[in-house]
Amino acid sequence: MTEHRITFQPSGRTLNVPAGVTIVEAALRAGIPIEAPCGSGGTCGKCRVRVVSGQTSSVRSACRLSEAERAAGWRLACATIIEEPLVVEIPKSHAQSTQILTSDTGLATTLAPSVHARDIVLPAPSLEDDRADTARLAETLKVSLQIEPGLLPMLATRLRLFNWRIRAVMDRDCLLDVLSADAAPPVLGAAFDLGTTTVVGTLFDLTTGQPRAVASSLNNQIAHGDDVLARIRHARENSEGARQLQAAVLKTLNDILRSLAEQAEVPATAVYSVTLAGNTAMQQLLLGLDSRALGEVPFVPVFDQALDLSASHAGLMVNPFARLRVFPQVGGFVGGDTVSCMLAAEFDQLKAPALLIDIGTNGEIALFTGKEIFCASTAAGPAFEGARISCGMRATSGAIDQITWRDNDLACHTIGNATPAGLCGTALIDATAELLRTGILEDTGRFLDPEEIENQPPALRERLVEDNGAPAFCLADNVLLRQQDIRELQLATAAIRAGVEILLKLANLTPDDLRDVFLAGAFGNLIRPVNAQRIGLLPAVPLDRIRFIGNASSLGAKIALLNRHAQTRTAALCRMSRHIDLGNLPDFQDAFVGAIIFPAE
Amino acid sequence: MTEHRITFQPSGRTLNVPAGVTIVEAALRAGIPIEAPCGSGGTCGKCRVRVVSGQTSSVRSACRLSEAERAAGWRLACATIIEEPLVVEIPKSHAQSTQILTSDTGLATTLAPSVHARDIVLPAPSLEDDRADTARLAETLKVSLQIEPGLLPMLATRLRLFNWRIRAVMDRDCLLDVLSADAAPPVLGAAFDLGTTTVVGTLFDLTTGQPRAVASSLNNQIAHGDDVLARIRHARENSEGARQLQAAVLKTLNDILRSLAEQAEVPATAVYSVTLAGNTAMQQLLLGLDSRALGEVPFVPVFDQALDLSASHAGLMVNPFARLRVFPQVGGFVGGDTVSCMLAAEFDQLKAPALLIDIGTNGEIALFTGKEIFCASTAAGPAFEGARISCGMRATSGAIDQITWRDNDLACHTIGNATPAGLCGTALIDATAELLRTGILEDTGRFLDPEEIENQPPALRERLVEDNGAPAFCLADNVLLRQQDIRELQLATAAIRAGVEILLKLANLTPDDLRDVFLAGAFGNLIRPVNAQRIGLLPAVPLDRIRFIGNASSLGAKIALLNRHAQTRTAALCRMSRHIDLGNLPDFQDAFVGAIIFPAE
Repeated sequence: MTEHRITFQPSGRTLNVPAGVTIVEAALRAGIPIEAPCGSGGTCGKCRVRVVSGQTSSVRSACRLSEAERAAGWRLACATIIEEPLVVEIPKSHAQSTQILTSDTGLATTLAPSVHARDIVLPAPSLEDDRADTARLAETLKVSLQIEPGLLPMLATRLRLFNWRIRAVMDRDCLLDVLSADAAPPVLGAAFDLGTTTVVGTLFDLTTGQPRAVASSLNNQIAHGDDVLARIRHARENSEGARQLQAAVLKTLNDILRSLAEQAEVPATAVYSVTLAGNTAMQQLLLGLDSRALGEVPFVPVFDQALDLSASHAGLMVNPFARLRVFPQVGGFVGGDTVSCMLAAEFDQLKAPALLIDIGTNGEIALFTGKEIFCASTAAGPAFEGARISCGMRATSGAIDQITWRDNDLACHTIGNATPAGLCGTALIDATAELLRTGILEDTGRFLDPEEIENQPPALRERLVEDNGAPAFCLADNVLLRQQDIRELQLATAAIRAGVEILLKLANLTPDDLRDVFLAGAFGNLIRPVNAQRIGLLPAVPLDRIRFIGNASSLGAKIALLNRHAQTRTAALCRMSRHIDLGNLPDFQDAFVGAIIFPAE
Repeated sequence: MTEHRITFQPSGRTLNVPAGVTIVEAALRAGIPIEAPCGSGGTCGKCRVRVVSGQTSSVRSACRLSEAERAAGWRLACATIIEEPLVVEIPKSHAQSTQILTSDTGLATTLAPSVHARDIVLPAPSLEDDRADTARLAETLKVSLQIEPGLLPMLATRLRLFNWRIRAVMDRDCLLDVLSADAAPPVLGAAFDLGTTTVVGTLFDLTTGQPRAVASSLNNQIAHGDDVLARIRHARENSEGARQLQAAVLKTLNDILRSLAEQAEVPATAVYSVTLAGNTAMQQLLLGLDSRALGEVPFVPVFDQALDLSASHAGLMVNPFARLRVFPQVGGFVGGDTVSCMLAAEFDQLKAPALLIDIGTNGEIALFTGKEIFCASTAAGPAFEGARISCGMRATSGAIDQITWRDNDLACHTIGNATPAGLCGTALIDATAELLRTGILEDTGRFLDPEEIENQPPALRERLVEDNGAPAFCLADNVLLRQQDIRELQLATAAIRAGVEILLKLANLTPDDLRDVFLAGAFGNLIRPVNAQRIGLLPAVPLDRIRFIGNASSLGAKIALLNRHAQTRTAALCRMSRHIDLGNLPDFQDAFVGAIIFPAE
């Protein structure tokens, strides 16, 4: 098999890859995920890279690139085959690490972790006390002891080596490991929010409950498509697809684990417990489950109940005896992340109707009716994360993230006070809401023609420009909000709004009945609720009922890590929950079309 | 590293071994265990083999061989180093398969196995029924379902491949495997009695409860010593010792499993459940546990409770999802075999005091006092199995196995009606008891001098001969019962008799109080109780209170395989049991010395 050497700039990372693979695949092997939101279909044009040296050929016409761009070496990474040694430059937009929300509303749970350390001194055996080692342990620990089978061969050795003064690592009543009480290494756990796009991990000391480190990363699976359906399609249509996806997400998780361990200056083997929440597709692909049935009607998941597994068998580079707890799933694409959000929002403690909206690449909605919980997922798409928006970008340096009405004009705030390079999801909502208020944007989502505009401040009127024969609104130099972007936002918002409407209707409730509306998601805390209500993303409830709970999926995973009773609570939440397949309801298309029109003020 | 080719006759098995290993080690690698009861110490002389071609050197003087034998090529396999290519002939006595008692008193248990098959038809998913696969399974099976983690990746595939008509292999509420209901392969289990000397396995159909095959074999560990202390010493004194012992017993078990599968004409992957009972050393060495503490005062085992493990992780060649259940242990060398015997004897159902004696290389005694169970083990040694007896042999073809008083003489019965080649344990007891009755043997164990004999039938008097200046009794041509053999029997019997006396004394009981005396062990059923009582091996109770329960350890393992409630029962038995370390009691040496004298008639 011919191999070629390929070097990625600016990192300088170099590796040999078989001839015939694409640059996206090579980059993935090099640990540099390149976003290909269209699933490497060669259509979105987001994966552009510059070939600095070497000749390439394309698998398909790269219509997204101009002749000048091609001449300058720009190529679509997903459509470009490696046929000789190459040097490829990855643009900053791909390479730079993304600001991902890792904070949340704070952790309100008592410390009672399933995996915990107990320092004990055992009586040494004597003629009068010839109990078996496990009997000695059980009676000192005062539990009905079970033993991790892998520990058994070294149990006797360690007890004697440590002179019977040990730190017992327990998972409830199961002895996972025996450490020296004198050396006293920490016993740690990691909580993961495994998102379709981003993955966040937090390291905790399980003895103190204190966070030790936080790390996040793009999900390496991104090279195989930007939404769950594209990923599942990849697994269905390629014989090695499922394995590639599993390897990609394992690499992501293990990179984060390594970063967490480095930050906390501990070995990765100090991690004895991992909790993980993700949507159905993410959880199943991680575990290598056959997820073909999730890619076709009626979208059947493999499992529903929580899983308690060996973390090392699952492929995580942690202590060989560490446990991995994966959240239970409700049904369809409503998976562990929604359950985790409901745990964080304490849906099991609610008395009055409440709504939870988790905005991500996949949008999930949970409605507590007062008795049960209706859950649905909608394919909101990545618009809220800046993708499929012509000047969209993630919330990284240079992104306009906030747009406010000031001095008779729109004022843009840019992350890092850099030169504006694009706009992220929150700014998209802000701009749309403000433009709806000015009337420049009609409720139908149509920009007015310049001649239709009356009584608007001149600064605003000047921003309305024409771009390729269509209206556009200029937010900054080179940052245009185009008519087509408004259409993308309308589709994304309508998916969630229609879902909320349908669930309310099924439950015979109106928005007025909702005592709480929880907004979760990586960017939830940055959304301005009045603007989200203006575009219809949030129902029209008094503002004081809206509660931002940030990355609630991550928060739920942390609660499960630090409190073993979370397992009972999530099981109860699942029993209360009913999966509603929106696509299967005759009303949904109707509601969706109706929701495309922005609500009247 | 220089290697030499070595061929074993008559099997013709050939392999390369590193220069410098002994013939015993080479034979073990070839899968031909050679008995070395002294633990390859070069002292017992039992491991003799004939070197047909090639020169050898010895690690130590082989005092057990005459000059003529050496000239004819005879060598001690344990003391002979391989330094060039060899052809070695293994005498028939080593190679021939031993008749091991695999029958027992029959199986009195209801069929309610932990591992079982359930044939079900699941409703296929539809728009109206989009439950997860595991929810569908749980609701059809009507259990709170758990899933074997290794099955998860293929669960969805198999359900659909088999068109939702499946045979579910369950371990209680845990789904171990999904098979096609149409192909309907059997679901089998194997019960093992893992003895120090012999291993017996029985294959059962877990759906019908019918036995499908029985197989037995010598424990391959025999090459490393013939009793548990020699094995543990081997593990302690050699860096690879524990691993060698584990590999040897795993090979034994896997050979038996292969034989069972061949007999029943099923694949080994049809075995989903294995139960195993052995003494503490056997169970721990099989599982690769650090058993050094078992080799020194106060003889501490690693574990006491029952273990539930993955059979394939433990090294058994069965279905990858099969379970292995290892019996709980009482303490010291009183291990799973004693618990298994107590289960078979229904010690948990007893109302009145009862005694259990399990005669093997390690003798175990359990005394039910009416409230609790005192358990002890005694190093009876292998005399009852024909070892350490000058003309002793196992109960194989050519062994005298029964000696009766007939026509004023002793009449010998030989297994297979072959020419007598030696005597086995039962004949040793018979001969000793009869000679005590005639008076030719004094209660002290001393043979009378010929001139001291009066009033004896001439045939009997003629049998009393002199051998190397010591008296001996001629049972057949070349089969002598020597004075030293009587001494070995006295020591072995005294160990058990003193143990019984001590336990009775601790419990404040006399033999009269015993309602039942259970005699267990591979050769138990062939012992004549009057003779066993005459030599003091069994206490003097009315004969109708003596119950032979044969290989009760094997029977207990079968009960545990076929009835899941056995696990609760064995746990209860262990709670009732107290380990008595006889060697630690000041009375024991006294009782032992007293028990060396045969009881007065």
